[in-house]
Amino acid sequence: MEALDTKDTWSDIRALIESGDREALMAWLDAQPAGQMGLLFSRLNSDEVQEIIRLVGPEEAAEILVQISEAQAVDIVEDLPSESAAAIVDEMDSDEQADILGGMDEEDAEAILSLMDPEEASDARKLIGYEWNTAGGIMITEYLAFKEGSTTLDLLEDLRANRNVYADYDVQYLYITNQKGQLKGVLKMRDMLLAKGNVRVGRLMNNKPIKVRADATLIELREIFESNNILGIPVVDNSDKLVGVVRRAAVEEAFVEEATEDFLMMSGLSGEEELRSMPFIERTQRRLSWLVVGLLLTVLASSVIAAFEHIVKEVIFLAAILPVVANLSGACGNQAVAVSIRELSLGLVKPWEVMRVILQELGVGLVIGSCLGIILGTVVGLWQQNWILGFVVGGAMAMNSALSVVFGGSIPLILKWIKKDPALASGPLVMTLADACGFFITLGLVSVTLSYLS
Amino acid sequence: MEALDTKDTWSDIRALIESGDREALMAWLDAQPAGQMGLLFSRLNSDEVQEIIRLVGPEEAAEILVQISEAQAVDIVEDLPSESAAAIVDEMDSDEQADILGGMDEEDAEAILSLMDPEEASDARKLIGYEWNTAGGIMITEYLAFKEGSTTLDLLEDLRANRNVYADYDVQYLYITNQKGQLKGVLKMRDMLLAKGNVRVGRLMNNKPIKVRADATLIELREIFESNNILGIPVVDNSDKLVGVVRRAAVEEAFVEEATEDFLMMSGLSGEEELRSMPFIERTQRRLSWLVVGLLLTVLASSVIAAFEHIVKEVIFLAAILPVVANLSGACGNQAVAVSIRELSLGLVKPWEVMRVILQELGVGLVIGSCLGIILGTVVGLWQQNWILGFVVGGAMAMNSALSVVFGGSIPLILKWIKKDPALASGPLVMTLADACGFFITLGLVSVTLSYLS
Repeated sequence: MEALDTKDTWSDIRALIESGDREALMAWLDAQPAGQMGLLFSRLNSDEVQEIIRLVGPEEAAEILVQISEAQAVDIVEDLPSESAAAIVDEMDSDEQADILGGMDEEDAEAILSLMDPEEASDARKLIGYEWNTAGGIMITEYLAFKEGSTTLDLLEDLRANRNVYADYDVQYLYITNQKGQLKGVLKMRDMLLAKGNVRVGRLMNNKPIKVRADATLIELREIFESNNILGIPVVDNSDKLVGVVRRAAVEEAFVEEATEDFLMMSGLSGEEELRSMPFIERTQRRLSWLVVGLLLTVLASSVIAAFEHIVKEVIFLAAILPVVANLSGACGNQAVAVSIRELSLGLVKPWEVMRVILQELGVGLVIGSCLGIILGTVVGLWQQNWILGFVVGGAMAMNSALSVVFGGSIPLILKWIKKDPALASGPLVMTLADACGFFITLGLVSVTLSYLS
Repeated sequence: MEALDTKDTWSDIRALIESGDREALMAWLDAQPAGQMGLLFSRLNSDEVQEIIRLVGPEEAAEILVQISEAQAVDIVEDLPSESAAAIVDEMDSDEQADILGGMDEEDAEAILSLMDPEEASDARKLIGYEWNTAGGIMITEYLAFKEGSTTLDLLEDLRANRNVYADYDVQYLYITNQKGQLKGVLKMRDMLLAKGNVRVGRLMNNKPIKVRADATLIELREIFESNNILGIPVVDNSDKLVGVVRRAAVEEAFVEEATEDFLMMSGLSGEEELRSMPFIERTQRRLSWLVVGLLLTVLASSVIAAFEHIVKEVIFLAAILPVVANLSGACGNQAVAVSIRELSLGLVKPWEVMRVILQELGVGLVIGSCLGIILGTVVGLWQQNWILGFVVGGAMAMNSALSVVFGGSIPLILKWIKKDPALASGPLVMTLADACGFFITLGLVSVTLSYLS
């Protein structure tokens, strides 16, 4: 792993690019340890990356691009002239094509599609049309399909003749269709090869194959793979026509994408993934768009304090303790948000079960709130040598934590119910509510007990 | 999907459990739509789950458990008597065994291991010993290995004879070893079956197979799979002995686990995954352990305000604006933390490149800070009709955002460098620093410009 961190590496690769020696460059790239392509490409500037892509040619370039993260690959392809981008995308598997093109601006993607092989382009267009987290969105359109009437000898001949084409095909199944292209059965390659004599495939195939519709969800797909020892599931359209195959690894890849997206959105990074190799302006804009909304919401919450200014003037220590109440309540709410988002993505809770979640979270919230209230109350009592103030602040903390936990647990479900993305909007909403309620409860309690406090 | 949400479902399954009719129960479970097992098991109480497991028997139970999420499965197995737990775990693939047992308390796992088939137990113990995010941690020990001297006829006979045993094996390769068990080559099942006549496997096999050491990282494994059209990579130990096989899907599954863990930790949920079906006490304890640390840190940060109480007394509006500065700076820092954690897990940045990241983030931070400062300054100026105060608060916001972005970008790298988990500790650390600096900068700026403010 050390190799790439020395200055030699950078002078090596730059010298190779300048020399324009394709063979030497490819040999050097091949010799890099696995797992280094992403790092390598993130450290070269855009011109250098383009020069490498040009030198190695479309086939090699396609292989390199599928090794690095999708966000990085999309970025590189967008920078290329449409012609060379199209040549490279042409070389990819259909699902990789859809990932790359689907990650680009529609206009850029269209420019590339119009220059691609028409058949590949039409396949890619169809795939982009599916939601990325459904069977249609992650399937490949490269599979082996044969007609019902064929015999094992026909198949063997075809396999031997097209050995090179099929060598790239991952899935170890032969799909048997009728004249209309409707899926009739699945035949394991191994069973076909181990069969004795020349047999009609109809007699060997499994004629009740496991199959899914193009809109099957990731959870459904994962469960099918978990309960069946198969490597691919055929995907059919509404008229039972075979349209693609979902591979086991593709399902898990989509789950990685989902978990990553949740992680980034909960951290306040909307839209596509941010990498430090991306253009400065793009990175700044993405982060700001979310922060400006946050700014306005947090000013709104703080206006509660402004409304109670006279109380703060009386008990100036509140200025120090209000941010504590707000921060902690926000943290309580965030934990509950994360649990809800996780349960939603595992299919363990349905959006309309809000009441059930509220009741479950209320219990947890009351216990958590009581503990935090007791600790904070004690800290304040000792610090200010004012146990009544400690009791009031601790009580406010307890109430507001419980409330925030309930908000945090329920708001993601409500957002999902009204078809908004819970990972993006829940955080700011829960934080604002937690802050505003925290300020209101604390200042309200202090104002009614003011005569006992001083 | 609707079926499980009606009351009928629950009376159905409960009636089936009470009846004790195994066949009827299994038929009912089989008839459930895919993706429902997790939901189903999360809604039944512990006794009901145990009764189902007992009724269906170990083999069925193992199949059900691998369909649901790991956290849920670990929970269920922990509740079972060791004997029946051992019988179920015995039925799983080696990597699933390691996942389940590795997720349990050491003591519970040991109790189960001691009751398992000794050979399976010894395999499982070895697998648990590897880090979960390395080749050793995700490999399976079920693979087909033959000695160098064998011929295709020997292999075919063995395959036909053991067809049922091998039917469960995923990987489509035969591994060829010498007498010492060292990996000598890999033979594609298909190439073997398509070969004509009786040939020694040594002549057909690829004798420079792709292989990895047991400590290979997920990034290395993913890149090997991306650049080679293979379904499994053989794993060897230090003496080149074949010890397991990593499947493509297992690598992606491990990435899902990593992204999920990052997501949960960044949201303040440490340790294992929390699901609402878990015991109340356990859920509360996990959340509290993180919150109490947060409470102490945030009190520490707020002590800065307490030290400046005299300034707050002069400009009471600060009580409303300090939480805004703290919240927003924290959000800025969090975004940078998320980008760093993401880049670390993609291998795009090395922990010792802190200076590089600081410089990169400083630029982004200054632009973001300036924008937020201008907006907040304008809001304050308009609100308080005091443009000098607006200028001071806006300036403080700008400086502190830039600082928080730098903290957020660099702290995860530093934590990783000193071998701490960045996903868990970065959030609270960055928030505390952002708060404390925000309070200090704002109050400091106000105190030196106090004479111009009123």
